[in-house]
Amino acid sequence: MQTYSSYLLENAVNQLAKLPGVGRKSALRLALHLLRQDEQVVSDFANAVLMLRQEVKYCKHCRNISDTDECAICADHSRDRSTICVVETIKEVMLFENTGRYRGLYHVLGGVISPMDGIKPSDLEIDSLVSRVEAGGVDEVVLALSTTMEGDTTAYYIAKKLAGTHVRLTTIARGVAQGDELQYADELTLGNSIVNRVPYRT
Amino acid sequence: MQTYSSYLLENAVNQLAKLPGVGRKSALRLALHLLRQDEQVVSDFANAVLMLRQEVKYCKHCRNISDTDECAICADHSRDRSTICVVETIKEVMLFENTGRYRGLYHVLGGVISPMDGIKPSDLEIDSLVSRVEAGGVDEVVLALSTTMEGDTTAYYIAKKLAGTHVRLTTIARGVAQGDELQYADELTLGNSIVNRVPYRT
Repeated sequence: MQTYSSYLLENAVNQLAKLPGVGRKSALRLALHLLRQDEQVVSDFANAVLMLRQEVKYCKHCRNISDTDECAICADHSRDRSTICVVETIKEVMLFENTGRYRGLYHVLGGVISPMDGIKPSDLEIDSLVSRVEAGGVDEVVLALSTTMEGDTTAYYIAKKLAGTHVRLTTIARGVAQGDELQYADELTLGNSIVNRVPYRT
Repeated sequence: MQTYSSYLLENAVNQLAKLPGVGRKSALRLALHLLRQDEQVVSDFANAVLMLRQEVKYCKHCRNISDTDECAICADHSRDRSTICVVETIKEVMLFENTGRYRGLYHVLGGVISPMDGIKPSDLEIDSLVSRVEAGGVDEVVLALSTTMEGDTTAYYIAKKLAGTHVRLTTIARGVAQGDELQYADELTLGNSIVNRVPYRT
């Protein structure tokens, strides 16, 4: 057990060690690094983290992260508003945007159905997706979920929920190997997968 | 180049990516992790970092990190006050304390003399070390510096500065391989090195 001569240092190390992938040795290294910085630099760092958590908003339409009530994608009227791409998290929105090959809108579920982790359909933004489709103007819903059991379950659940709406349901091409997480796929594969999307079959 | 739909997110990622060893992908992962935490958790995190930098003090005697004007080691009168171990940073104080094999006091230089990095003797706590020795009561000064050219130069400089004081000058045993940084040595080697210290020879 490490002995700290300062409670402030010990507390900062404890907090930094809570970050994913940061052990106690790394946390001490980070704390000593921050100690060597100007006060303004550390203040900017702490404020950026605090403001992110306190001030961030989620788009009222698609639940994407945003600084305003409506995100820049939903507010962009040059985009194809008849197509909604359903993703698990804001990270996948960023990944698809980086491919530059998709011009429709998004809907962020906030995860996938996972009984093992206690995530039920009602914990996800599925009802809000159904509402968006029912409000009209949407021709196609593209399911862009991870090719895992949880992703497949979620796709199946959404397909059943949207069955009555006559919207065209597609899924991104399975260029991604079965069992892979979407966030680890390369941009080319992801770009192809959304261009070559095919009708969804249960 | 990554596109962010939120300036708050982009700013937080930029700040997190400034940490040593954290790239932009890791920074995004950390930011998304923090977004998922309770507001209180993130607030505690940011405050711990901010308080560390703003409130931390350095001991008026040995320059070790402390929450008070005098650190716990200098304030502990059960310790051997006639021996001062000279180290580069507060990290080495923690390392020697963890060995549990040293009962004297410390003096933190704040680095080593390094013309390459523009660090001059006057940038280090060498004058304050000389003053402590001259104030009396100190029989032995143990040099525990890295076995690098900069560490050797600093040891030589201190030896010359203390030459007139008749204090016994020792150096930790060179169990540590030549060219190694002290912070990467194991506790046993470090413990042995301070117990088996030998008279300093220039």
